[in-house]
Amino acid sequence: MKIDIEKTAEFLKANDFFYIIAHTSPDGDTIGSSFALYYALKQFGKTSKVICADEFDVKYDYLFREYKIEKFEPKTIVTCDIADENLLGDLQQQYEGRVDLCIDHHVSNKGYAKNSFVDHTAAANCENVYRIIKALGVEISPLIAECLYTGIVTDTGCFRFSNTTANTHAIVAELLKIDFPHYEINRQMFEIKKMERLRLETMLVTEMESYFNHRCHLVVVRKKLMQELGLSDSDLEGVTAITTQIGSSLVGITIKEKDTDKYKLSLRSTGNVNVSEICQKFGGGGHFNAAGCTIKGTEKEVKEKIIHALSDILSWGSVNAE
Amino acid sequence: MKIDIEKTAEFLKANDFFYIIAHTSPDGDTIGSSFALYYALKQFGKTSKVICADEFDVKYDYLFREYKIEKFEPKTIVTCDIADENLLGDLQQQYEGRVDLCIDHHVSNKGYAKNSFVDHTAAANCENVYRIIKALGVEISPLIAECLYTGIVTDTGCFRFSNTTANTHAIVAELLKIDFPHYEINRQMFEIKKMERLRLETMLVTEMESYFNHRCHLVVVRKKLMQELGLSDSDLEGVTAITTQIGSSLVGITIKEKDTDKYKLSLRSTGNVNVSEICQKFGGGGHFNAAGCTIKGTEKEVKEKIIHALSDILSWGSVNAE
Repeated sequence: MKIDIEKTAEFLKANDFFYIIAHTSPDGDTIGSSFALYYALKQFGKTSKVICADEFDVKYDYLFREYKIEKFEPKTIVTCDIADENLLGDLQQQYEGRVDLCIDHHVSNKGYAKNSFVDHTAAANCENVYRIIKALGVEISPLIAECLYTGIVTDTGCFRFSNTTANTHAIVAELLKIDFPHYEINRQMFEIKKMERLRLETMLVTEMESYFNHRCHLVVVRKKLMQELGLSDSDLEGVTAITTQIGSSLVGITIKEKDTDKYKLSLRSTGNVNVSEICQKFGGGGHFNAAGCTIKGTEKEVKEKIIHALSDILSWGSVNAE
Repeated sequence: MKIDIEKTAEFLKANDFFYIIAHTSPDGDTIGSSFALYYALKQFGKTSKVICADEFDVKYDYLFREYKIEKFEPKTIVTCDIADENLLGDLQQQYEGRVDLCIDHHVSNKGYAKNSFVDHTAAANCENVYRIIKALGVEISPLIAECLYTGIVTDTGCFRFSNTTANTHAIVAELLKIDFPHYEINRQMFEIKKMERLRLETMLVTEMESYFNHRCHLVVVRKKLMQELGLSDSDLEGVTAITTQIGSSLVGITIKEKDTDKYKLSLRSTGNVNVSEICQKFGGGGHFNAAGCTIKGTEKEVKEKIIHALSDILSWGSVNAE
């Protein structure tokens, strides 16, 4: 059942002993919205706990500094930023069909929960949790502000992406009236890189391939290079940005070697090219400007397949691999 | 004389035939605030013109699409984002002591104009011009919104820098209620790079030097490399960011070869290190976290001098050049 903001606040007031679930491969928005809700419920005298099938990256540690794990039997299951129950990961078996309240901002939300507050006009789920906290009448502490700010900046690329709205900025204007080190959060999220990641980027740029008269750029992240640099998958966050940095670029392709003859592709587009449609041809999908798929074959075959799939859209003249 | 926002609006209403001057090496904020004012005055039936001693970079072209150069004798001289008359460049001789109104946000403003509206709590001068336009009662057109947004995002690093305030976001929340392609502006300002610039960055990262147990990183931009890549000084905007990307980095140094035995240094710091103080030792200066100076000598000598100057602050243990 879809419920509005007031009903969501009422629901939270009427219940207790919450398990708040963040999605697998947890990002800033699922972590930020879960912990903002946790700290708000705590101020309200409620007992709650944040759980997730996967570990939280150490870069989010500053959000957990007042978090205390308590042991209790959950009576209310809440999900934050989870569009589909399969994003519960290893927790799916236990909680499938048992979610009491879902707070989310994905247009693709499956409506799996008993009660759902879903506003897909929100750039980040943290915008929804901000509104719920205001409806609850809870004071926004600096730590709650940090949680909400973290979710908003990570889901909007620090206000750069097209999902950013007037409302996003209006909420952040309210948050910044509270004293917290927003500059430090931005440095942590967007600036700091491992030296090995920087080295990887330099190698990818050096070997970047250009197709369709520079309208498409492609990089290959090979397992051997990752091993040599001592990098893991979590170190690759945002690496796809390299492929659309050139002004003429309409499509960027990042090919990641998974196994022998198995490659994971991430496609990004900058304008009116629907890469989700391209990825669907290979059994993948995603958003209009950001999508992914897995293709089997040798590296050479995989490249040929994806470039061929793009040729209808990008080969206005002849197709030139440069 | 310092005047407030109402007096500034009155002044603009009472006068006409404006020359609006942008500062030398024009950036997004001086251009954005000058043109926002131009378009606002035009709506008000006033005649005005934007002038600058230096050319505007082509990446700002979208702000000039409704700009028409008219020939007239100026009666009122206004400066936008100019703290000191020496930033008039080649126009200084003609307009020194003749500025009727200065609109600025620099704490270091020299008070050279007959009337000054200076609010240094504004992250960008465009915040001040926004307030003036509101006080004038002029409707903010999409193009005025683009001018103001451009100045705000360029002066705040797209809301990343510590100068960003609640008020900055509140103003942008108002601007985004007007329909304009803010995503495209961000891509233009922060994402797009020339391939040659990307190649330069990869070379700088590959050769980046680390000092004081990774608390300081240093790159050298040599003339020969710039020539080989066909890059000019204007292609180097923001290149200093490379030097503070590593998490442990407290100070980043970019050394640019100017002439034989003459090097221009740009220092950046991430926290509590005052690089302006360091640069003052060499006759330079700037802000607490971003400053510059020129040092004479061979490349090796220049490096030794600057590293020595930093050793009091950064060598908690022994000084290790790695």
